[in-house]
Amino acid sequence: MSQDTTPATLTACEAARRIRDGELTSQELVQSCLDRIEAVEGTIGAWTHLDREYALTQAKAAQDQRQASESLGPLHGVPVGVKDILDTADMPTENGTVLHRGRMPAEDAAVVERLRAAGAVILGKTVSTELAVYSPGKTKNPHDPTRTPGGSSSGSAAAVSSFMVPVAVGTQTNGSVIRPAAFCGVYGFKPSHGLVSRHRVLKQSRPLDTIGCMGRTLEDTALLADVMIGYDSRDPDSAPRAHPQISRIMAEEPPVKPKLVFIRTPVWDQAEESTKDALRELCEHLDDIHIMELPPIFGGALEDHRRIMEADLAASFAKEYRDGKDKLSDVLREMIERGQQVLAVDYNAALARIADYRAEIEEISHEFDAILTPAVTGEAPVGLDATGSPAFCTIWTLAGVPALTMPILQGPNGMPLGVQMVSAKGDDGRLFRTARWLLGTLEEE
Amino acid sequence: MSQDTTPATLTACEAARRIRDGELTSQELVQSCLDRIEAVEGTIGAWTHLDREYALTQAKAAQDQRQASESLGPLHGVPVGVKDILDTADMPTENGTVLHRGRMPAEDAAVVERLRAAGAVILGKTVSTELAVYSPGKTKNPHDPTRTPGGSSSGSAAAVSSFMVPVAVGTQTNGSVIRPAAFCGVYGFKPSHGLVSRHRVLKQSRPLDTIGCMGRTLEDTALLADVMIGYDSRDPDSAPRAHPQISRIMAEEPPVKPKLVFIRTPVWDQAEESTKDALRELCEHLDDIHIMELPPIFGGALEDHRRIMEADLAASFAKEYRDGKDKLSDVLREMIERGQQVLAVDYNAALARIADYRAEIEEISHEFDAILTPAVTGEAPVGLDATGSPAFCTIWTLAGVPALTMPILQGPNGMPLGVQMVSAKGDDGRLFRTARWLLGTLEEE
Repeated sequence: MSQDTTPATLTACEAARRIRDGELTSQELVQSCLDRIEAVEGTIGAWTHLDREYALTQAKAAQDQRQASESLGPLHGVPVGVKDILDTADMPTENGTVLHRGRMPAEDAAVVERLRAAGAVILGKTVSTELAVYSPGKTKNPHDPTRTPGGSSSGSAAAVSSFMVPVAVGTQTNGSVIRPAAFCGVYGFKPSHGLVSRHRVLKQSRPLDTIGCMGRTLEDTALLADVMIGYDSRDPDSAPRAHPQISRIMAEEPPVKPKLVFIRTPVWDQAEESTKDALRELCEHLDDIHIMELPPIFGGALEDHRRIMEADLAASFAKEYRDGKDKLSDVLREMIERGQQVLAVDYNAALARIADYRAEIEEISHEFDAILTPAVTGEAPVGLDATGSPAFCTIWTLAGVPALTMPILQGPNGMPLGVQMVSAKGDDGRLFRTARWLLGTLEEE
Repeated sequence: MSQDTTPATLTACEAARRIRDGELTSQELVQSCLDRIEAVEGTIGAWTHLDREYALTQAKAAQDQRQASESLGPLHGVPVGVKDILDTADMPTENGTVLHRGRMPAEDAAVVERLRAAGAVILGKTVSTELAVYSPGKTKNPHDPTRTPGGSSSGSAAAVSSFMVPVAVGTQTNGSVIRPAAFCGVYGFKPSHGLVSRHRVLKQSRPLDTIGCMGRTLEDTALLADVMIGYDSRDPDSAPRAHPQISRIMAEEPPVKPKLVFIRTPVWDQAEESTKDALRELCEHLDDIHIMELPPIFGGALEDHRRIMEADLAASFAKEYRDGKDKLSDVLREMIERGQQVLAVDYNAALARIADYRAEIEEISHEFDAILTPAVTGEAPVGLDATGSPAFCTIWTLAGVPALTMPILQGPNGMPLGVQMVSAKGDDGRLFRTARWLLGTLEEE
């Protein structure tokens, strides 16, 4: 075993390679992650369920399988954190609410099935906010434990950021992958709606819910996304389209120099001055970036998203509201109660406009390889009673287009500040290829 | 040309065969249909657009193509009637409302594309009720012009019934194929939801709208259905499943004697006494039929259907309501206004229950090859200001399961009285095979 780094700090790509090549065992890697967790989990609180013995048992099984088998999955022996709203047959899944305490699913979520088939060790379940909405869990920001890690995929972002696990799965219905990733200084990716199956994942809103992932490098994020993506007839929005093969497309040279467009979006005024300044500087850095506004139709997008999400929360959590209203947070109860009042005709009109938003972004993507836009309003705010604003994520989630946050800026207090890249629905591969090119460009400067 | 029957009275299957074999030309067939139309259309009023010259031009083109081409479509040279809510690029499509008078679509509906690809002559557009809801058009029942033909596919049913055209396309959101077919004494088929593309067809309600067809024989109905069915990515509910190949499955011998179950449904009390008696007699005739009730959950199905349909009408016809409320019928305006008040949470709860209804019918279909049930409450009522009750269709439309009405009974006034057969979603082929077996059984007796 010749290695000069602590295994827990390896990328998933490198760890998988070393395990495949016999330079590292899955047990060594998992033990290193567990050591790291032992050291920092008390401060950070990223995990809601973690059984050390069971993690090592999985690692040993992976190692045994490696010796017996010829073809190994792309994540063979690599630990992955899974947000605690994805069902796991061998671990509790409590959805961030006391109402589901002790809940033990009988079967794995489709994504968990895929992870296991790819050889991953399911290290444990990461903290979600209450029912994956706003009310925070115990997690703190690894860069400053007085600040929020963002939500709702709080534990996944914090665990990856603090080297407890190389990659983790999150979900986004508004800003729940991009925001915590941007706050915690990791890459976060929300794929095109429909690419990743949501079978056996807590349902908030069918048109909005999207499974995403996080990693400390772009390559790791692509690797995990490629494992997660795949047709599943059990998800009604999954379509048997060709797999985008993100890692492969990302590795290609762009045929011509990519064209970027900077879009402020209708919520630009909500960004802090320091965020605006940082993004302006980034744009100046990139000599050849265009700047445009979204068409006026997007002025209604946040209201459309709110209607759909709140009406769907009222439907999806009707049982929780009926049986345990007093055990719900005020913020969620109020969202549900607003949602109960949404008219079907308004709901359906909002749903119908999704195609229009999507078409406008498609139009932009004919001219530009990617949209550059803020991921968050600013650094992770101080305080652990809220998870920050998702405003810069809402439009892209509603439109179902792929979005990626990259930890390439810093805020005024030295906290990470993600920058978001967006492309048209289905253009996930090109988005990563453009992101890789952008990272290369920034490194050269 | 050796033939002893008027071509207009031929079945579509026989006409297609004769054209293929050179025993009949498409022009002769179309001219015969036009002669029949000339004779009876003044009384019946089945057509909203019919250009005799253009029909003959299409027939000549079909005949020319027959001479030039080796492979002919299954409907080559055969005229088909198309309900005037399916777009046609070469004929107006006015959707049964003065608000769309003179509307000329730029492109064909997907079904019309498929009909043309199968070699059909689009004879003309058949009368729909107002926007395919309740308010009647000009059509009268061919068996008694003082009675309604049923709606909303009034013209298609009347045209097929009166030998103006061998087969026709209709649509159903509640009972709009089954009811007019049952009233006019023809076969009517509503396929499983999602089998036939609704691209460029007037939209009332995505979860309910279904394209269906009518014919004077079971074989003709299957032939037309097979042409219409096929995956189309432009319809969001179309799935790339294997084509059920109804005609082929129908022609097979059932592996064991089919088992039927008679189901009264929660609306049995709405059936006229003579309908109840006729169905009781039919059941006694069939020595081996089981009788069961639907599970209690179906008690809410009609209300769920009403909520979904009215809320969707409010959304789909928002423009018509805004711009031409005074030109809508009272019945439609009131449905839209009720629909405007439906809450999204109730709408979505109703939508969610569709899967439960479907699963219950699936369960029944494990034991029985088909459900036998009334198609209508009784004979077509006297009067032309309403189109009769769709109550016996609602549950099956909501569940998205295939339904077939067969003209095998008579009412007390000698009017036709359809009997409905239903099976599980996707079991369209078995439904026809069982229907063919049933017809054979009844003939033997």
